[in-house]
Amino acid sequence: MSAIRILGIDPGLNTTGYGVIEIQGPLIKLCEAGIVRSRAKQSIEKRLLEIHSGVKEVIAAFEPQRMALEQLFSHYSRPRTAILMGHARGVICLAAGEAGIPVAHYEPTRVKKVLTGNGHAPKHQMQQAVKLQLSLATFPEPADVADALAIALCSHHIGDNTPLEELLENR
Amino acid sequence: MSAIRILGIDPGLNTTGYGVIEIQGPLIKLCEAGIVRSRAKQSIEKRLLEIHSGVKEVIAAFEPQRMALEQLFSHYSRPRTAILMGHARGVICLAAGEAGIPVAHYEPTRVKKVLTGNGHAPKHQMQQAVKLQLSLATFPEPADVADALAIALCSHHIGDNTPLEELLENR
Repeated sequence: MSAIRILGIDPGLNTTGYGVIEIQGPLIKLCEAGIVRSRAKQSIEKRLLEIHSGVKEVIAAFEPQRMALEQLFSHYSRPRTAILMGHARGVICLAAGEAGIPVAHYEPTRVKKVLTGNGHAPKHQMQQAVKLQLSLATFPEPADVADALAIALCSHHIGDNTPLEELLENR
Repeated sequence: MSAIRILGIDPGLNTTGYGVIEIQGPLIKLCEAGIVRSRAKQSIEKRLLEIHSGVKEVIAAFEPQRMALEQLFSHYSRPRTAILMGHARGVICLAAGEAGIPVAHYEPTRVKKVLTGNGHAPKHQMQQAVKLQLSLATFPEPADVADALAIALCSHHIGDNTPLEELLENR
């Protein structure tokens, strides 16, 4: 059975966390994880360029078969935050599209539930789950990286799942 | 005085209107206007690819010095709509960034006010203003094209204006 790599992404305009995991049969291992930064105090188009380039580099280096993202609708009560986050998410999904990789979207509560059994698990419990499942010596840091790895692990456990398309069908 | 071209965009996940105007001294003329469509019933990453490619083609063909977009924060009371629209807007801003073109953002009420003197001008009044200012024989159609041309005209009248960056500074 050949190995499958999943790229989990925690999008942000300042800091985008990423984590690549590799699954071979019953084995799950961490390939690489890190941060794509976009410098503040510059125009949105330049920030989006940095995010897009950074994610493209990760895809080119690790050739994942799937990208996994949190579906962020439930996070934002403020449209302003939601639309700004949508910009970052858009160029990240585009990078996947350009590489021909499907994107799976998961509700944050589902990610927590799948990893810990508790849809409202606190941050520490999530970090512990990621550490255990990837046999890491320490907690993954910073939080954006831990979140990205959690999304990748969720995607491995429940498979391809793209509820975002359902929402788009009637638009 | 050399001519300046401004590309106005009315972003959407299904239909993105665009309009290129050229200004030479006191003369304003329509260069080109149209629609970039993204087919429904496909994944968001594929839709974003179509929007991004379409806008890149327009930029390559007309080499505008500036892109102008509506700043959409005030439109959306629903975060779900806002974040989906943000995805489309993100890849459009990225296309500008890749071409080294600055993006100017304008409040919808400001676009209406600048073109008609009335920040709450109805659609018909806006179409009439676009028709007059570009010396068109008929109303620009469809609505997405008229909106894109209105944004380009607004950008010409009030110059480069990028309030979006102010919102980002403390993020």
